[in-house]
Amino acid sequence: MSGNLDYFFFPESVAVVGASKTPGKVGYELLRNLTEFYRGEIYPVNPTADEILGLKAYPSIKAIPDRVDVAVISVPAEKVLEAVVDAGEAGVKGLIVISGGFKEVGHEGAEREKKLVETVRKYKMRLIGPNCVGVYVPKSGMNTLFLPKTRQGFPPHGHIAFVSQSGAFGSAVLDWAALRGLGMSKFVSYGNKADVDDDDLLEYLKKDPDTRVITMYIEGVEDGKSFFKALRDTTPVKPVVILKSGRTEAGARAASSHTGALAGQDKVYDAAFKQAGVLRAHGMEELFDMALALALQPPSHGPRVAVLTVGGGSGVMATDALSDLGLQVPRLSDVTVEKLRRVLLPIASPYNPVDVTGSARDEHLIQAAEILMKSGEVDVILWLPYYIVPGVTEKLNPEFIKLVNEINNTLQHPIPIVGVATGGSYTVKYSAEAESMGIPMYLSPERAAKAVKALVDYGNWLKTTGKFSEYIENLRKRLPQ
Amino acid sequence: MSGNLDYFFFPESVAVVGASKTPGKVGYELLRNLTEFYRGEIYPVNPTADEILGLKAYPSIKAIPDRVDVAVISVPAEKVLEAVVDAGEAGVKGLIVISGGFKEVGHEGAEREKKLVETVRKYKMRLIGPNCVGVYVPKSGMNTLFLPKTRQGFPPHGHIAFVSQSGAFGSAVLDWAALRGLGMSKFVSYGNKADVDDDDLLEYLKKDPDTRVITMYIEGVEDGKSFFKALRDTTPVKPVVILKSGRTEAGARAASSHTGALAGQDKVYDAAFKQAGVLRAHGMEELFDMALALALQPPSHGPRVAVLTVGGGSGVMATDALSDLGLQVPRLSDVTVEKLRRVLLPIASPYNPVDVTGSARDEHLIQAAEILMKSGEVDVILWLPYYIVPGVTEKLNPEFIKLVNEINNTLQHPIPIVGVATGGSYTVKYSAEAESMGIPMYLSPERAAKAVKALVDYGNWLKTTGKFSEYIENLRKRLPQ
Repeated sequence: MSGNLDYFFFPESVAVVGASKTPGKVGYELLRNLTEFYRGEIYPVNPTADEILGLKAYPSIKAIPDRVDVAVISVPAEKVLEAVVDAGEAGVKGLIVISGGFKEVGHEGAEREKKLVETVRKYKMRLIGPNCVGVYVPKSGMNTLFLPKTRQGFPPHGHIAFVSQSGAFGSAVLDWAALRGLGMSKFVSYGNKADVDDDDLLEYLKKDPDTRVITMYIEGVEDGKSFFKALRDTTPVKPVVILKSGRTEAGARAASSHTGALAGQDKVYDAAFKQAGVLRAHGMEELFDMALALALQPPSHGPRVAVLTVGGGSGVMATDALSDLGLQVPRLSDVTVEKLRRVLLPIASPYNPVDVTGSARDEHLIQAAEILMKSGEVDVILWLPYYIVPGVTEKLNPEFIKLVNEINNTLQHPIPIVGVATGGSYTVKYSAEAESMGIPMYLSPERAAKAVKALVDYGNWLKTTGKFSEYIENLRKRLPQ
Repeated sequence: MSGNLDYFFFPESVAVVGASKTPGKVGYELLRNLTEFYRGEIYPVNPTADEILGLKAYPSIKAIPDRVDVAVISVPAEKVLEAVVDAGEAGVKGLIVISGGFKEVGHEGAEREKKLVETVRKYKMRLIGPNCVGVYVPKSGMNTLFLPKTRQGFPPHGHIAFVSQSGAFGSAVLDWAALRGLGMSKFVSYGNKADVDDDDLLEYLKKDPDTRVITMYIEGVEDGKSFFKALRDTTPVKPVVILKSGRTEAGARAASSHTGALAGQDKVYDAAFKQAGVLRAHGMEELFDMALALALQPPSHGPRVAVLTVGGGSGVMATDALSDLGLQVPRLSDVTVEKLRRVLLPIASPYNPVDVTGSARDEHLIQAAEILMKSGEVDVILWLPYYIVPGVTEKLNPEFIKLVNEINNTLQHPIPIVGVATGGSYTVKYSAEAESMGIPMYLSPERAAKAVKALVDYGNWLKTTGKFSEYIENLRKRLPQ
């Protein structure tokens, strides 16, 4: 059923049905975004215009002389069906129906949606939507969102795919991701998911070479069994992190008025997610904090964490946060403590947390990391560099990361590194640099601890499914050595 | 014992013992910060220099011809006592000892600290430290931190006081607060708290007119009973939010190697905090998320929350987050639903969450807020404006906030407003504007929910202590009407 949905994300040509000449209207703003991002052919469809935004306009899809891969439809609900028939007869492959006025508005809308799906099937097309904001693909520039660039940011290309049942939340997340510098491979808002649904997208994204981690915001699914199967098929290959709302009774009631979704018993979802190896997030920040670590770092082979810190207080908070999540911060062996003592300052604390203190210099952090990684006593390193202290210089990031990569190339189970840098502009600059070099960086120990937990949980899941080594092998093929 | 510690925060003159001519040294950087922030008299003390950073230097404190309010001491540990005797004889009131090498380094250091305290008491001085970064007061410019402005940011004046047992964490928080635009009244890092301790600072900050909320990072206290009493005295007057680390077994071990603090049984702290009306935070973001709401908004008279949202998905997530914390998101009465239906778009959802939808305009949010505030059915409003949608304009913040303030002036129990705006640059700009007008704004519903919980919990505490009405009265005197 799913087939290859590539044409939705990398179409050669796109028609915009409902293209408008009036700034502020969805049909104008959407077309304008498309002209600014997308590099393929664009055909505005509007029966009363000859030209819009410098592009020749057509009265209908059938009137377009060339092949159209995808038709984006933004006309009143009662006119959608006509446009869909038109698209079907013109040989369009994929439809993205932005228009609302379907299942989400009650009985009449549900009937309309049923006819819509029948027509789509009849012409062997596929449909994203209705009642959605569609797709955004940085790599191809395919972009059906209708908020102007002046209000809404769009993130760069990266390795996180994001599927959202809520269009408004999806837009806000893209906007936030742009500011955060979080790269995305594909964004899909599928609204009522009348045709293309979670299962289809999981199957597609599982094979998508640009996607390393799949993130989803969902309020409910119709066919739980099929969803579970799709998840179960995907998670041994790629991590799936899900933010499922409507968790509480009041939340479920809210979800039902929002998308008409049956939020279902949360316990059922929770158990199913656990059995399918899904990592569950409880908010946007957690969703992407987890995804970032999974996109940049290998999964962890165990739960033993070394806390390597410049600030004692943050080391204590990190230890609390890790312990809260059931992770271990084991005291190091006497041999390792002795090795650390030899390279660190006399005032440093060589146990775990390894507190190099605010008087430390770059080399103390680097030498401590080397000793910890080679000790065989820890599986993950949580790194708190405090870029502001006098002894930490601009050489720390490149030298630290070079060392980490070199050692990890020699280890059977590479040791993931997760970073914390609490601070202002100076810190943010160096934190972003570390992240661009592959280390996920967080503002607080608590958020980083959840990212560590995701790496440990996913590592555990890969071990359970017997896929740990295969995953690491693929990672080594992919990453620059 | 405590007396008035004003001279530490608003000294007329400060001596810097250990002032240095060498950039990069603590004694130089500290003096430089002081010259850049502080507007009183500064006297560098250095036996081998005549002048430092354009200021006349003195060989000892006693050699300074004028009165010295505070001596900041940054010399090696073994030379501290001599400087302290000198200060005592010169009639200095307050000492801030930055130097480490005391209780935190073991037996010898503990002996040294004991002598230090004896000397301080003998001369009837007060001491902040040793082993600390001291104080930062935006209003007076008193600043004993030694990281340069190029690395570390300093927040503007505001109404949150922050007391930190960890100097490095304290510095990082100031830096983060500067970037976040979070105003502070006073920052105190008291290190080993050999003399001025939590109790003294609580007593001082309780009376401090610039401080509306007291935040603390602590790893442990020596005299639990006395601390509890100080907390119990303070919380009916001002909210106290505490981030106490060393909560877990591993964390307590880490805290003990950090400051030698006895982290104690966390359950004991937790129970004491509850009995003393302290709000407990579990991380930096939570600490200041809670403090911000308490500094800007009145406490809530009850647990009933209205969720007023432009985005359906975020409304669901907000409802989940509020429910998780034991707060209510009650369905509104038929009368209120009908009133909302009359002013909102047909596609809006008038229950609770009140989802005005992404097609809403400013007036829908404003009219809905008015109906909710006057309904008597809710105690708090969680507001999710989604600044990016087309119908929301630059008029929303001023008009919304004007209305809210007008209605709150007529209510016996004012209704606090907490906001959520998930997004990028455009959103951040309008979010900062709303905050400058008095509405605390958060990036995610989960973080905002914790802020709402703080307002509800503090309101509850004030009701328990019989101080609710008095607190609201004081608030009304203070706030511009």
